[in-house]
Formats: sequence, C-alpha cells, structure tokens
Amino acid sequence: MKQKIITLLSDFGLKDPYVAEMKAVILSICPEVKIIDVSHDISKFNIRMGAFVLASAVPYFPNGTVHVAVVDPGVGTKRRPIIVETKLGYFVGPDNGVLMLAASRGGLNHVYVIENAQYMLSRVSRTFHGRDVFAPTAAHLAKEIVASEFGKEIKDYIVPDFAQPLLKNDVVFGEVLHVDDFGNIITNIPSEILKKLAVHEQEGLKVEIGKKAVALKFCFAYGDVPRGEALAIVGSHDFFEISINQGNAAEKYKVKTGDSIRVRE
Amino acid sequence: MKQKIITLLSDFGLKDPYVAEMKAVILSICPEVKIIDVSHDISKFNIRMGAFVLASAVPYFPNGTVHVAVVDPGVGTKRRPIIVETKLGYFVGPDNGVLMLAASRGGLNHVYVIENAQYMLSRVSRTFHGRDVFAPTAAHLAKEIVASEFGKEIKDYIVPDFAQPLLKNDVVFGEVLHVDDFGNIITNIPSEILKKLAVHEQEGLKVEIGKKAVALKFCFAYGDVPRGEALAIVGSHDFFEISINQGNAAEKYKVKTGDSIRVRE
Amino acid sequence: MKQKIITLLSDFGLKDPYVAEMKAVILSICPEVKIIDVSHDISKFNIRMGAFVLASAVPYFPNGTVHVAVVDPGVGTKRRPIIVETKLGYFVGPDNGVLMLAASRGGLNHVYVIENAQYMLSRVSRTFHGRDVFAPTAAHLAKEIVASEFGKEIKDYIVPDFAQPLLKNDVVFGEVLHVDDFGNIITNIPSEILKKLAVHEQEGLKVEIGKKAVALKFCFAYGDVPRGEALAIVGSHDFFEISINQGNAAEKYKVKTGDSIRVRE
Repeated sequence: MKQKIITLLSDFGLKDPYVAEMKAVILSICPEVKIIDVSHDISKFNIRMGAFVLASAVPYFPNGTVHVAVVDPGVGTKRRPIIVETKLGYFVGPDNGVLMLAASRGGLNHVYVIENAQYMLSRVSRTFHGRDVFAPTAAHLAKEIVASEFGKEIKDYIVPDFAQPLLKNDVVFGEVLHVDDFGNIITNIPSEILKKLAVHEQEGLKVEIGKKAVALKFCFAYGDVPRGEALAIVGSHDFFEISINQGNAAEKYKVKTGDSIRVRE
Repeated sequence: MKQKIITLLSDFGLKDPYVAEMKAVILSICPEVKIIDVSHDISKFNIRMGAFVLASAVPYFPNGTVHVAVVDPGVGTKRRPIIVETKLGYFVGPDNGVLMLAASRGGLNHVYVIENAQYMLSRVSRTFHGRDVFAPTAAHLAKEIVASEFGKEIKDYIVPDFAQPLLKNDVVFGEVLHVDDFGNIITNIPSEILKKLAVHEQEGLKVEIGKKAVALKFCFAYGDVPRGEALAIVGSHDFFEISINQGNAAEKYKVKTGDSIRVRE
Repeated sequence: MKQKIITLLSDFGLKDPYVAEMKAVILSICPEVKIIDVSHDISKFNIRMGAFVLASAVPYFPNGTVHVAVVDPGVGTKRRPIIVETKLGYFVGPDNGVLMLAASRGGLNHVYVIENAQYMLSRVSRTFHGRDVFAPTAAHLAKEIVASEFGKEIKDYIVPDFAQPLLKNDVVFGEVLHVDDFGNIITNIPSEILKKLAVHEQEGLKVEIGKKAVALKFCFAYGDVPRGEALAIVGSHDFFEISINQGNAAEKYKVKTGDSIRVRE
C-alpha cells in the first residue's frame, strides 16, 4: 500500500483532548497512516474560514489524500455527515459547505451520506461526530474501503454561497475571505480578474476597504516597500491581498472577514 | 514489531523548544514510533486539568500505547518519576497524581520508580525531566524493555483527591472539572448518577452554579435549543455539561475549574 | 534508507494553512520522512528568538536530520535562500542569521545558495519561500541529493551579531536571549562563565536586570525556594536563568528579549 495521508482541520483548538481522540480513533483502525494537521484554530463555527484554509492547503497534498474538516455548529441535528469523492482525494465532514470550496476545485465526482454504522464507533455521541463518525470514516477510506460502501449517493448537498468577486465599469467588487496571522487581508479576488483592469505590478492602484479609500503600490514582494508601509500584492494562493511590510494590515484598517473591498486603477 | 504509539501531554505550550526536544530524544532511541500530542496547553501546573485531559483521550488509543504526562511543579525535588503499568498501556510522568485518573480507569497493575540511569539521558538536568527522564523512559518502553527494569515497585504512590460527586436527597453535588475551548462547563458528574434523579432528556432540570440557580433543558444535542441559548447535556466523555448552543457558557456563568455545581429535578 | 527526520520552525503560527502546505510539499516529494515541528510560534520576524529556539532543540535530534527555519522578513527580496551543511545535519532557510547559531554549534562545513530550479516547486511565489523553495529543498536533502547539487558554495553568508557575554572585574555582562512560556528569563550566559565568579549553588548572588538589583539564591531546582519566590538557576540548555517557582519572572521584572543582565558574587 502507498503511504496514505489523512489531514485534519477543525475549530477545536489544541488545549482539549478532542484532536488527540480523533487521531487515536484513526490509528486504531489504520495504524500506518500519516496524520497531518491543517489547522485546529479555525474561529469557532466559522465555516467560511474553514473552507478557505482547507481549499488553500489541499492542492499541495498528494492525490488520494483523505481530508477531514470539522467545523460543525449543527452536530447532532439533522445535518448529514458526508464523503465527497473528487479526482484529487476524499473530503469527510458535515454537509454544511465547509468541504465544498476545496472539493469543487478538486474535481467533484460523487457525494455520499455516511450512514453505515459498521464504519462508525460502536457508540456515537450526539456532540462529537469528529471522533465518532468522521475519524473512523477517514480511516476506513485510507484502508481503501470504497466511498459508496458508506451510504447512498446524494445530489442535494449544500453548496456555500461565498461571494464571487464582480468586475463592473473597471472596478472589482470583492470581499475579505480571511485575515491571516500576520494580519494580511486576503480577498476573494483572483489574479486573473485584476488582469482585466489596467493595473500593473510596481505601479499604484486604488483600494476601497469598507468606506476608506487608499492608494497602494502593487508589489511583487512585501519587501518592495519600506518596513511599516502598506502594499497590495497577489499572495501565494493567487488571491489579491493588502499587507504591511513587517506590520499588521488588518489592525491598521480594522478589517474582518466578510468586509467589502473594491479595487480600481 | 507492531506500530507503537507514544503520546505526550504537558503544560509547556508550543512556543518553546521543549516539546520538540522530547520528540527528538524519543526518535533518537526508537525511530519507528509514532508520536501523538494529546495537549501541551494544560494550564501551567494544573495537575487536575492535565489528569482530566489525559483520562479523556486515553480510552481511544490502542492497547500498549505509552502515555507521557508532564505537569510537574515539583521537578528536581524529591517527587519521584514513575511508570504506571496498566491493562491498556503505560503511563510515564511525575508521582503527583497527574497520571492516576487515567491509569486507574485503565486497570492499574504495578507502579515502578524510574531510577535506572541506563534508561535516562547521560546528563539529567534538575529542571527538565520531560526530556531527560520521561522521554527516554517512554522510548525504551516502546522498544519493549519491561517496566520492572526501570526501578523498584512502589505502593505508596500519590492518588489524587479529585472530588467525587455526591447524591443526597435527590440533589447531585458535584464540581467543575474542566472548561473547554468552546466554553463548555464539564463537571465531574457521570451520566449514571443523573439516572437516579427523576430527570429526563428533552425535559427541564435545575442547576445551581455557585450561588446562581438556572433552569435548563436537558438536551441530546447542542442544536436542540436555539443559537445563544443555554442547555444541559451529557457530553462525549459521559460527564454532565452546561453549554450554550454556539456560545460560551463559562463566560456567561463566570465559571472556573473547581467551582461547585448542584443538579436537581 | 534510515528513517529520516525533517524539522520545521517558523513564525507562521498554526491558524493558517501555511505549515500544512509545507508538510504537503515535503510528503509529496519524500513520503517516508518524519516531520517534527520545533515551533511555529516564534514572534513574527524575530530572527534572534528563532535562532535560540532552533539551537536549543537541534542537539537532541539524530545526526543527518534536516532542519528548516523560516523567519524571513526579507522573503522575495535579494536575501539568498541557503543550505548549511554541518557535521550534525543540514539547515535550510534564508541567509539572515536565523540558521547560524544552531549551525555553528553543529560544526559548520559548507554553505550553498539554493538556485537550482529543479529542486523547487514549478511556480515559486514571491511571498512564501517556505513552501516553494525551503520545503522542497529539505525533502530532496532527505532523499540524499547532495547539497552541492542545489547551487554554488558561498563564504559571505550572514553571521548574526548576537551579543556574547563579557566577564570583567568579577561581573558578567550579558543579556536576555529568550523569555519562555513559563516566564523564565533565559540569558546568553553559559554556566562555564559563572564558574569563574565566586558563586556557588545553594548560595546567594546578585543580579542586575536593567537598572534593578536583586539578590537571588542560586538553586539546583525551581522547588529549592518556596512557591512564588524568585531564584537563579542554570537551565536545561546550560544558560543562566532567572525564574520564579511556579510563577512568571518576566512579568515580575518586566523583562524582554535584548535587555541587559549583570551577574556578580
């Protein structure tokens, strides 16, 4: 068997025993698998942030990796546990949209409900499906149980309505997807939309952050401006970002996830 | 050799090199072992919290796992380093009670003092037994050195006096064991004691948190009440919890570890 | 092939997908390697703290380990990506000094610039060399590609000017290298310099922290003084520390990295 990888993403934090319990369940079923943490510091119940972080990391993992994402405010209610089968690998988690940004980029093939009790822990709690349902599902997928064994295929899974950026009259209307730990403001504006504006790297552009208008240099690297100065850049995930060289842009501009961003020449 | 697992728990945090040094020592002695972090964010010197988090995670690991727990305010003094041999696996750490909640649930067989210098680092500091004593001990246990090789058996090990809940006149007297990262208030009251009260899920019960009395719905899932509303629930570790659906119960009720909790019909 | 280890150190934090992306790149190239996190909570852009944490952890890893350290305020500018080959193993990161404290203790042999695009990701961003340059370099080193394959040898690499302690007129002039998560104040004063003073363990000595003079007991273990009391000690990395038994010395003395420390009899 090829070295299999299972990744874990959650909003559990690392203080409590929850992440270790998921790993224990996985290794009890599939001892040889490698487990890699994507992040457990997703803001509590923030499906959008979970979806963004997962979608950013997934393209770098080998094909066949099993990705588990548990940002799950509806645990124990009627929301369904699902497996998404894609060309790149499997996604396991709640049917609330958290998997779908990554899964759609990965070439979605089929979505199955997890309902076969044979692949869950023998006692399933109503509060911790990460351990009782998703972890054993991932471990069995890593052992090459086929996804259709877990339950019936569904078509009415939830597709999240994360805003798409809009280009209109030479202005891009986007929004803030994520604020990273450096304070970089990551928008939902991919580089190809910017190419349709008459903006060029190493030149200036205008950005409106909420109601505040700022003129920024459009840079290749953070170090293209002096320390402490703001800049615009296409970041490492191909999204348009606003940053401060060695400083915190989100603090300076008082920005949070979901705020509107406009870019013009 | 079967795939061996060593787990690590401490109050070291993840900023400093300490956890990595323990892993380096382990892998230098036993390169094939899998190392799983249970938690390194135990509140500094909080033996009770360490004991709870360890005891929660341990049941999910395969038999034979070696669990290291270093919450060790007495490092370098006369407190003894010990190995606890149980039916489920081994526990390695200081003789201050942190191992005993998990070890007693695991079917305690023998307790040994670690005194054989052959299984320690050649230079043992007075401030970091996690690296110099406990990590090499765990690695040698994973290599199947028998526990009695490390030192003499003892019977006078410390058993922590964590409060047991009391049922009296149809009232359960318990206390707060842990506040998790979601703000869930986890008590030391197991579900079987609640069954002796005339309380039923999906009905109401009365809880006194310190001096404050609250009427709560006794739920199966967090989502059984509207977002922002408080509820009572038996959590995934079979302890009675007070929670707020998508909110922080510990903040609302200003609760911390050790506070008294009373439950009645 | 012997079990290979790659360690990772950065100032990325664990919230964002960045660390997982580095691990994904490494495992895509070298699936069997073990990846150990040294720390990802280095203070942003704090090269000195990164250098100290790396140098502390490295001696405990097996020879041949590949250590990656990304504290990289100059990413995307002219600062060079380098490999340092030492007797103990390899160091991979930016040429800004972060590798050199550890590498010089490890017996530095050669320093190479990383410039062979064959060993980088096919698309190298200007903002995330950790993923695009350093991770694939480390993975190829773990696969036993020789270091000289990556680029030409250089002699003009940056050697950090971290202050050396000075002994003059029976006073040691040093400074604070690091404040750990317990609030221990770790200085750059190694134990051998203290031996030249007439100070003895279990006796008193005088320490000046900034402008404040304190008389402290020179202890073997934190528990040698009552809880809450300050002490002086040689810590587990052989550096002179100021600590409080079960308390936070850095908070009490309002100390930060770089502050001056004087020790006398």
